[in-house]
Amino acid sequence: MKPLSPTDQLFLWLEKRQQPMHVGGLQLFSFPDDAPDDYVAQLAEQLRQHSHVTPPFDRRLDTRLAQPVWVHDEHLDLEHHFRFEALPTPGRIRELLTFISAEHSHLMDRERPLWEFHLIEGLQDRQFALYIKVHHALVDGMSAMCLIRRMLSTDPGQRNMPPIWDLPQSAHHREPQESTLWRTLRYWVGESGKQLGTVPAVAREILRSVNEARKNPVYDSIFHAPRSVLNQKITGSRRFAAQSYRMARIRRVCHAYSTTVNDVVMAMCATALRVYLMNRDALPEKPLVAMVPVSLRHDDSAEGNQVGIILASLGTDLADPVQRLMHIHREVQQAKDRYAQMSSEEIINYTALMMAPAAFHLLTGMAPNWQTFNVVISNVPGPKEPQYWNGAKLEGMYPVSIAMDRLALNMTLTSYHDQVEFGLIGCRRTLPSLQRMLDGLEQGLEELEQAAGL
Amino acid sequence: MKPLSPTDQLFLWLEKRQQPMHVGGLQLFSFPDDAPDDYVAQLAEQLRQHSHVTPPFDRRLDTRLAQPVWVHDEHLDLEHHFRFEALPTPGRIRELLTFISAEHSHLMDRERPLWEFHLIEGLQDRQFALYIKVHHALVDGMSAMCLIRRMLSTDPGQRNMPPIWDLPQSAHHREPQESTLWRTLRYWVGESGKQLGTVPAVAREILRSVNEARKNPVYDSIFHAPRSVLNQKITGSRRFAAQSYRMARIRRVCHAYSTTVNDVVMAMCATALRVYLMNRDALPEKPLVAMVPVSLRHDDSAEGNQVGIILASLGTDLADPVQRLMHIHREVQQAKDRYAQMSSEEIINYTALMMAPAAFHLLTGMAPNWQTFNVVISNVPGPKEPQYWNGAKLEGMYPVSIAMDRLALNMTLTSYHDQVEFGLIGCRRTLPSLQRMLDGLEQGLEELEQAAGL
Repeated sequence: MKPLSPTDQLFLWLEKRQQPMHVGGLQLFSFPDDAPDDYVAQLAEQLRQHSHVTPPFDRRLDTRLAQPVWVHDEHLDLEHHFRFEALPTPGRIRELLTFISAEHSHLMDRERPLWEFHLIEGLQDRQFALYIKVHHALVDGMSAMCLIRRMLSTDPGQRNMPPIWDLPQSAHHREPQESTLWRTLRYWVGESGKQLGTVPAVAREILRSVNEARKNPVYDSIFHAPRSVLNQKITGSRRFAAQSYRMARIRRVCHAYSTTVNDVVMAMCATALRVYLMNRDALPEKPLVAMVPVSLRHDDSAEGNQVGIILASLGTDLADPVQRLMHIHREVQQAKDRYAQMSSEEIINYTALMMAPAAFHLLTGMAPNWQTFNVVISNVPGPKEPQYWNGAKLEGMYPVSIAMDRLALNMTLTSYHDQVEFGLIGCRRTLPSLQRMLDGLEQGLEELEQAAGL
Repeated sequence: MKPLSPTDQLFLWLEKRQQPMHVGGLQLFSFPDDAPDDYVAQLAEQLRQHSHVTPPFDRRLDTRLAQPVWVHDEHLDLEHHFRFEALPTPGRIRELLTFISAEHSHLMDRERPLWEFHLIEGLQDRQFALYIKVHHALVDGMSAMCLIRRMLSTDPGQRNMPPIWDLPQSAHHREPQESTLWRTLRYWVGESGKQLGTVPAVAREILRSVNEARKNPVYDSIFHAPRSVLNQKITGSRRFAAQSYRMARIRRVCHAYSTTVNDVVMAMCATALRVYLMNRDALPEKPLVAMVPVSLRHDDSAEGNQVGIILASLGTDLADPVQRLMHIHREVQQAKDRYAQMSSEEIINYTALMMAPAAFHLLTGMAPNWQTFNVVISNVPGPKEPQYWNGAKLEGMYPVSIAMDRLALNMTLTSYHDQVEFGLIGCRRTLPSLQRMLDGLEQGLEELEQAAGL
């Protein structure tokens, strides 16, 4: 028995029918060379034998003395959690994305451990996929990524590798750079020093801070984003879209313009948003603002890998792709420079205030008449070397994140080996045909290549 | 725009995360003789062309002047409703049932028309399946069955047959024999003459009637059922199990014992429940009581096909299968005889009182310390002749009903051509390995065959 942390409770509390709070990861594998045609069915049979379930995957919610707790599930039904599934003909990536869109829309059963592991056959070209779905209250996004990486190996010869629910137990490191809104919400919830029963108190405290901060003209001038269709109430159905890009291709563009990989990736997202919204006649006059976790490496810092959250204008009002890239480059640099002059404590306070309107809305359901950002773009570092699972090569890994009220789109990227993997999750009703943004990403990169004569 | 009826509202009101209120139908088809191997994929492509959606399938929920209404969905996204899916290897009925179990557990998106049409490929032996899921607020169970039947034809040569969402509009007849709890809840809700905003008032009225009735010793002696595991709070995940039986086989047993088809079918269910609960060491000493809709044909009645609800002891305390069958036979006959002496109005009042404790619980969430039945067994008449859809022969059709708090199992049967089709839906946590009840159904029939020397 283990009491839920305030953060765990927060994720349960934020969950609504139209706002599930689980995260997912999609991994695409190719068969080992010597694999028979029924390789995936054999793999399913092997996985079913792993009836032992290690923490935290054995934990279900319960209530003790009116407090929510995690307890060991005595009646764990592996068939509920491990699912062997198939794509319909013709088994392209398109069918895979349709499948993930539907699955990611489904709430999980709260009376059971809050995870599912989907093994998916029926892909073309001797490929198969895993889709791992975990509630944010059970495992935070970064820990989930760690667990998935622990399941894999760089050795193509290794066999008898257990699935994620039967990994040997170890001290799970929570990576330090856990990102985005959650850290901030945790800050607020922790700040008040109270349990979630006091959400209204936390919300009042946030509102007080926001109103105070807005009296400061500098603060107010930095933080405001236009109204947009991205920032409406969402519905319960999702669309997932994903795409891999060669890192080498993106690096060539970086070198041509002397920017970072992150700048180019953000410019691709900016073009995708601009084209998508223009086609819907819904592009705001003022540029969209993205919330982006970035590395705050100080040359003189011993820690070396501190991560902060910045808000950056995406220049979606600029028609010229090169101008847009350079605008983003400057925005990010300015935000980093601002941090460089701050102490750690100042950074924490500053970040918390950036997030305050969104946090207030999430906690209260009330929309403040002020928006500090329109979209979340996060870049999660992944494995640098090719990965294998029981001899099957990992071809791509795509994050499947969370869409929320007033944040109908989340763009998450992962680097893997020589690729950058884009995973876009959004509310399917608020953002119809979201998958078209993939064309926009490509257009964003192509325009920059052409302008540089690449 | 069309206001929701009190009954439509009731189904929305009863729906909880762990208690979805949709019904489903599973149809199993064989390929036409001349069909190519990719027949189902071609069919999917044809179905996608049916972008026209006729009422009620174009309706979504909305609110006008604080009242829930059905409105035409201007942005209907057919890809959300029509889903082409596949079973994993080896594509047996077992994989199909696992698939349906998972799908039937998922809540539907309330911001969209409340229906889904799943075309499922990957079955063995040149077969495919349809699983049609409709919220009870949109279409009641009987109307859904009518719509499905309207989609089919007795002519194997007919082609270009539209799917259920694009049927030519007609006056949909609500069949008169809509069954079970709903009619009763409608009675109570209608009785008070008020909208659902007054659920507490309706519940108080029910409780008053129950307490009055219990002062009558006859009433009290007729209506009580033992406590059992079937009558606990349920969770959100479902298990679906289904099986076809040849009508000829069941009729042979009927003739051997001079009983009805319904008696034998109930005896099969009784054996399945007895064996399942004994194996879990959870068989109540007193016999389980089933709620069963039955035909109340009076020889002198002009209407001829009135349907009533009876409660019948299933004799689950009796070890001898023949005694059990004869006990059920007498129970059903007594209940019918009781109705024969009542006026229509008396029947309505009597039925409403039978249902009152369950209705009270459903409306209030409070468990009355009194249970009138343990399980729902309903027998829905289906088509008498072989049916086809675009040349594909309908091999079986199985109802997928609703499990509810304190009614964790629903056993629904359909007759089709020369078959009786059993569809069992239950809470997967309350009733683990529910699919083993299929063995119990078979055992129930075999024991009766052996005892009769068949």
